[in-house]
Amino acid sequence: MTQTKPLAGVKILDMTRVLSGPYCTQTLFDLGAEVVKVENPQHGDDSRLFEPFKSGKSLYFEATNGGKKSLTLNLKNPAAVEVLKRLIARTDVLVENFRPGIMAKFGLDYENAKKINPKLIYASISGFGQTGPDALKPSYDILAQARGGLMSLTGEPDGNPMMTGISLSDVIAGVFAATAITTALYHREKTGESEHIDISMLDCQVAMLESAMMRYQATKIPPKRVGCRHATEAPFQMFQASDRPFVLAAIAGEAMFQRLCQAIGHAEIGADPRFSTTAARHDHIDELGAALQRVFDGKTAAEWVKLLEENAIPVSLIHDLQEVEADPQVQARQMLIKSESPELTDVKMIACPIKMTSLPAGGSRPAAPELGQDTTTVLRDLGFSGEEIENMKQSGAI
Amino acid sequence: MTQTKPLAGVKILDMTRVLSGPYCTQTLFDLGAEVVKVENPQHGDDSRLFEPFKSGKSLYFEATNGGKKSLTLNLKNPAAVEVLKRLIARTDVLVENFRPGIMAKFGLDYENAKKINPKLIYASISGFGQTGPDALKPSYDILAQARGGLMSLTGEPDGNPMMTGISLSDVIAGVFAATAITTALYHREKTGESEHIDISMLDCQVAMLESAMMRYQATKIPPKRVGCRHATEAPFQMFQASDRPFVLAAIAGEAMFQRLCQAIGHAEIGADPRFSTTAARHDHIDELGAALQRVFDGKTAAEWVKLLEENAIPVSLIHDLQEVEADPQVQARQMLIKSESPELTDVKMIACPIKMTSLPAGGSRPAAPELGQDTTTVLRDLGFSGEEIENMKQSGAI
Repeated sequence: MTQTKPLAGVKILDMTRVLSGPYCTQTLFDLGAEVVKVENPQHGDDSRLFEPFKSGKSLYFEATNGGKKSLTLNLKNPAAVEVLKRLIARTDVLVENFRPGIMAKFGLDYENAKKINPKLIYASISGFGQTGPDALKPSYDILAQARGGLMSLTGEPDGNPMMTGISLSDVIAGVFAATAITTALYHREKTGESEHIDISMLDCQVAMLESAMMRYQATKIPPKRVGCRHATEAPFQMFQASDRPFVLAAIAGEAMFQRLCQAIGHAEIGADPRFSTTAARHDHIDELGAALQRVFDGKTAAEWVKLLEENAIPVSLIHDLQEVEADPQVQARQMLIKSESPELTDVKMIACPIKMTSLPAGGSRPAAPELGQDTTTVLRDLGFSGEEIENMKQSGAI
Repeated sequence: MTQTKPLAGVKILDMTRVLSGPYCTQTLFDLGAEVVKVENPQHGDDSRLFEPFKSGKSLYFEATNGGKKSLTLNLKNPAAVEVLKRLIARTDVLVENFRPGIMAKFGLDYENAKKINPKLIYASISGFGQTGPDALKPSYDILAQARGGLMSLTGEPDGNPMMTGISLSDVIAGVFAATAITTALYHREKTGESEHIDISMLDCQVAMLESAMMRYQATKIPPKRVGCRHATEAPFQMFQASDRPFVLAAIAGEAMFQRLCQAIGHAEIGADPRFSTTAARHDHIDELGAALQRVFDGKTAAEWVKLLEENAIPVSLIHDLQEVEADPQVQARQMLIKSESPELTDVKMIACPIKMTSLPAGGSRPAAPELGQDTTTVLRDLGFSGEEIENMKQSGAI
């Protein structure tokens, strides 16, 4: 049975670029929506020019624009703005990640867009949000990680703040935006109401602080960096084996900790009064780490992982991306799928992590569009004549 | 005008504990859903015992369970399973984050639950997913960060892999689960169809790898750690000022880079042929960082931030959590809100980062429930008599 994807029939007008917005609309595409991406005719989404390249294609762009249609519009040209208005009248959702105020310059801020389409869901993603003293400032992932507190929590206790090695703030803003949009789609089915969604990278970063912010609230002392271990539980950390580091988390009660000590042949660690209860381990978190580290020096990480897994202790190697691709669980879950682009047959793309009855695992990633490849088709569907389209080309509107 | 929140009327049966599941259902509560949390009568959600504590309450638990109802059920008791079945018949969404197979032990895996409620949305969140060779293994945030590749990308180039200092894998799984659930709610409005959602922390971690995984795919060489800077763009990194570090990201074209060099009084850096184009800066990313660092030694971070902001260069201090709370933008966005708990009047809770017309910023965070505080009310609403409830208490079912 061919299942209809859950957002089948939903039309997304995608006025986003680089990462937070395209990540959001890629997720909506994967869930079954139709996504029409609006790009400037000069060079399109900036990220078409971003590394890495393969067969002349930016894989950066490819990763978050698969299956979208590309329509070029020069919004400084009034004819292009008229096209956009006609698109807005027919779309379900508009997503934009311009700096606040840019859409208003085109006369297409939320209030005006809603006049064209009273049921429109209009989602704005920005660095700092649509309101507040810094709303108009530009942002980037590293600024959100720094300003939102994440860098202060990441890194060695005696070292500098550390950036997380992915564009975390963009990704989380994109996923929260997708949650907001699908919520608004549900709400509109119930009530017919339009919505303006206002997602900020900084807000989303703050929303991720969870127990760290609670530790600050409890003590009014900013939490310090703790390196590769849990702030309050032990053993939950990275250890160095003879060849490479690995991680374990044996914090599910007394029996698990005793099983760990037995398994590594050091029952005396489990019997040590400093470590003999959860509370005691918490109070002697440094000494416990040191005692275990002396043991783990003695075998390779793979040997420890095998031994500890046999004893039902949560443990893992620290995978580089080659090992991630080769991981049997990642493969079984089909998290890396083939690209449908004929030039990218040896490239694996990241799959949507949402699996549900109407969206089973597997499949392949449609190619990202060439710049403007769907301009003529989209304009014809909107009712523009061949002559009108030609005139728009001549005038540089498309 | 009082606006109805977007998920008003949606009923969530919350069979989750600790973090990924509660984070998901807290978001759904914030969006307007009613959440009934099922807990074991012994001690409830494990995280009720997690640090930090304030006025005898776990703020860890408080942060992700505000406004939920608490119902105790001992699912080893058949009477409790009957209660659960009656709840399933009346709920819209069941969310669980047991290890795969546990719900089946109660006879309440998806297929059986769907027999009770043919329109049920049933969301499972787990460490590795419901399928694959490692489906039954326990997981924790640090395992997902390690196995999913994130730790290999975070940290100093010449240092060890580094853990990101929040429970990132739990949070991202919770947000993707919320996206999936709201998508399923929309889809059900359209089609009447039930859904089984299968979210894995490892899948979600892999889904965040974005351009890093693309760099691997382009080269088949696992990307290395790059510390506090961008893998391919410059300058986009942390610098040390005379007193503390700060970050800047001056990568939006040539004019911005030249403005940066002028602003710091070193136009010769902008004129240096090694740095005079985006491509050149990319090729000499180390030399550029060193040249700028020599300049930034000369003033405090606050002085540099002020100067660079005046010149429209994206720049930020690296905030600790005290500074996050005091940040005027965070305050204007009302990302930290009062707790309604009478014992927690001096504690700020983290707000939902989704702002939309039907869900404006502000308000306060309802208190998390005492263990079992709503058991009697929920059972009465389900039609159980006072005598039946008393019998369940006597038998330890509730």
